[in-house]
Amino acid sequence: MDVVTKAELMDYAPIKGCMVIRPYGYALWEAIHDGLDPRFKATGHRNAYFPLFIPESFLRREAEHFEGFTPQVAWVTRGGGEDLAEPLAVRPTSEAIIGPMYAKWIQSYRDLPVLINQWCNVVRWEKATRPFLRTLEFLWQEGHTCHRTEEEAEAETLTILEIYRDFVEGTLAIPVIPGLKSESEKFAGALRTYSIEALMSDGRGLQAGTCHNLGQHFAKVYDITYLDRDGELKYVWQSSWGVTTRLIGAVVMVHGDDRGLVLPPKIAPWQAVIVPIPSDKDADLVSGAVASAREALEGPEVPGGGSNGGAVRLRVDDRPEYTPGWKFNDWEMRGVPLRLEIGPRDARAGQVTAVRRDTGQKMALPAEPVALRRAVSELLGTIQGDLLEAARRFRDQNTHEADTFDQLAEIIETKRGFVRAPWCGRAECEAEIKERTGATIRCLPLPEPPGPGGRSSGRGSRCALCGGEARDVVYFARAY
Amino acid sequence: MDVVTKAELMDYAPIKGCMVIRPYGYALWEAIHDGLDPRFKATGHRNAYFPLFIPESFLRREAEHFEGFTPQVAWVTRGGGEDLAEPLAVRPTSEAIIGPMYAKWIQSYRDLPVLINQWCNVVRWEKATRPFLRTLEFLWQEGHTCHRTEEEAEAETLTILEIYRDFVEGTLAIPVIPGLKSESEKFAGALRTYSIEALMSDGRGLQAGTCHNLGQHFAKVYDITYLDRDGELKYVWQSSWGVTTRLIGAVVMVHGDDRGLVLPPKIAPWQAVIVPIPSDKDADLVSGAVASAREALEGPEVPGGGSNGGAVRLRVDDRPEYTPGWKFNDWEMRGVPLRLEIGPRDARAGQVTAVRRDTGQKMALPAEPVALRRAVSELLGTIQGDLLEAARRFRDQNTHEADTFDQLAEIIETKRGFVRAPWCGRAECEAEIKERTGATIRCLPLPEPPGPGGRSSGRGSRCALCGGEARDVVYFARAY
Repeated sequence: MDVVTKAELMDYAPIKGCMVIRPYGYALWEAIHDGLDPRFKATGHRNAYFPLFIPESFLRREAEHFEGFTPQVAWVTRGGGEDLAEPLAVRPTSEAIIGPMYAKWIQSYRDLPVLINQWCNVVRWEKATRPFLRTLEFLWQEGHTCHRTEEEAEAETLTILEIYRDFVEGTLAIPVIPGLKSESEKFAGALRTYSIEALMSDGRGLQAGTCHNLGQHFAKVYDITYLDRDGELKYVWQSSWGVTTRLIGAVVMVHGDDRGLVLPPKIAPWQAVIVPIPSDKDADLVSGAVASAREALEGPEVPGGGSNGGAVRLRVDDRPEYTPGWKFNDWEMRGVPLRLEIGPRDARAGQVTAVRRDTGQKMALPAEPVALRRAVSELLGTIQGDLLEAARRFRDQNTHEADTFDQLAEIIETKRGFVRAPWCGRAECEAEIKERTGATIRCLPLPEPPGPGGRSSGRGSRCALCGGEARDVVYFARAY
Repeated sequence: MDVVTKAELMDYAPIKGCMVIRPYGYALWEAIHDGLDPRFKATGHRNAYFPLFIPESFLRREAEHFEGFTPQVAWVTRGGGEDLAEPLAVRPTSEAIIGPMYAKWIQSYRDLPVLINQWCNVVRWEKATRPFLRTLEFLWQEGHTCHRTEEEAEAETLTILEIYRDFVEGTLAIPVIPGLKSESEKFAGALRTYSIEALMSDGRGLQAGTCHNLGQHFAKVYDITYLDRDGELKYVWQSSWGVTTRLIGAVVMVHGDDRGLVLPPKIAPWQAVIVPIPSDKDADLVSGAVASAREALEGPEVPGGGSNGGAVRLRVDDRPEYTPGWKFNDWEMRGVPLRLEIGPRDARAGQVTAVRRDTGQKMALPAEPVALRRAVSELLGTIQGDLLEAARRFRDQNTHEADTFDQLAEIIETKRGFVRAPWCGRAECEAEIKERTGATIRCLPLPEPPGPGGRSSGRGSRCALCGGEARDVVYFARAY
């Protein structure tokens, strides 16, 4: 992960476990925001902002939740020059501050559903941290919804899970397994937690997003009730869900290679970089060709460009103090999907030399503006698709089957990756497998397309550990 | 300010001095973000994210800054179940964490300028709070830049001041006075602070945005140096600047009236609301006319719509459980710029009845789709302009001139508003005027267009308090 500092995605902050997200890295977070936020809004959600601080007594009202998060909480004990009567938690998640507000706002079935999301920072005091994957402070979005019925809450949970899956696969080019978390891995206080699980290039699993069906648990704790059509006072049904800056870490670890980052075109801050190949003799020729290419790629929609007519996010690297070779390495390390070289020979031949970051493939594109714009747009689309395919191939090649504990343990030890194995559903077996192999149950995979309750059946097989009847075939992996 | 809770812009949080920004209020912050962020990017700035926590020793390195902010700091003293060796400040502003990072990142003149902004939350422990105007936690953007020369830092400071002025006047429809803060009102540690100053409808002043020329002060404290072209190691020149969720409070207080909010069309979450006037006999007629109007206003660009062809942010309030009259009041209270009533008579006459929120003016618009779209767009443009004009008229009518302390004191006591008065430039006179009238110097106004150093000269007049030679004619007001 040295690449994340070299590529200036982040830097280590002077507070242990905290990071600075530098502009190049923050642009990825902005792309994640800009991809997800319209999808949330299109499904009826609106953004809001709840306080950073949660009084200790609010957190304590839900025992399981409090136990789950307390070891990770940062506490404010002094403010305005005085010791506080009650310590304030810096939010590790916001159920405990949002619940009491919902209790106040919701009176009647007419007030439902409540579909609110917030983009904010949260703090969880971690001992072992790693850039983007696990940091003391991180950025995320957290959705918090209330519904009339259990079915609506479950449908919401799965709607968001599908938005996450679609975005992470379609935009970040990371294939994921949508599934249910085991009881011991679920969110503290939730009825059920669903997640999307990805496989990193080092064979470790990564939970890339979670959706919790909270049932009526928090509604009962925070007294969130509504008067239903039938005149009865009832508790609402809730969901909460989130993705974090960890997604940036997933992009780095799934697509990167020995030479550095490889960014999917849809989120790359710069989709293409033009590196002019300088020539004393033909300086005007080259700079003219560069200017023409820039205009073709950056300008407003070209007539005849069709669906590939959108502007390319382009960087022209004409810094005189660096050589083309140095720039090639630098932009490769930073993961720009496409390098466009323009030298005297290209200019004379009416072409632009394109080099794909993902495959290294070199090709000549036509310099004629409309054709260039179309060729670059198509190439970016191809790269986007190929990245997902490559990651899917890697994931599938590194997904193994095991029937027994010995098989499971050996694969985890020697090959890593995902291991699909039957499990009886008992927490004891799950704990012992974790203890002996370091692997956890990533999820109980959902059937595709995902639907409520259904999942990959283990009927007929035997738990890899205890040999009891298997309830599910589940995914095991060592995970971040 | 009861209207901010009634209109569901915000609610009081269970932590004293904190607020929840509800979706309708947060949509205004999103509009502010969406207005300013592209302007920052168009002037070369990029977003980043720095940690929430600042070690106490970092804040202490700059004595003036530390003294200025320490009384307002919230301190984290426990984390991960342990007492911390060093307390962490929850950022009141980020100079003290950004400075050390810049020191690390900047080596050479080639690394300059550094133009970084961040959108985040900050905490300042305030005793007396007020929704949006002064809260313990608030949202803001803070720009932090480094430059090679003093001139560049000053130019940057004034560039941003002009972006703020243009946005606040052009989008929020709030006229402002751009000016220089007095020494006693400037940012702790800055060389010079510029601000834009607005007048609220109750006659109080409000600082709506600030830009600080930091000189080399923080550069020396945090050792931010660069190797210049001439081979010499030099300190950078810096600026910082920000606007906050306080701008939402300004919109409420400048444009609101007895019936509630009045939102400028450019930032209104809903620019128009259609209220159908139900009729048992003509239900289909009305619903058909409503559907047609909705399609005309919300749909993609209408051929022939010209520059007024953009989609209108529209709400159709067809809730059966409320009467039209109830809805009229409700949407007026929420400040939607334009109400469109559609009843059987309107439908038959081929018209839509429009009512302006700002003036109450009622008029008939053509129901024909292209004409309706154009008429509504034009009307929204007119409302936007009229709101700025009305606010400017109010501001000008409530800006008074005073030559003597008695005049100044009487105006502040009886009329409020801005008072322009000559001032000798001495902090003693400023302090005594504040002590005796409650009014502070809002700013030393810049000449228009603003340029470095120049300001409204007081040459020839005498300080309103001491009678000494006046250096400037300045703006006094009681302020939030």
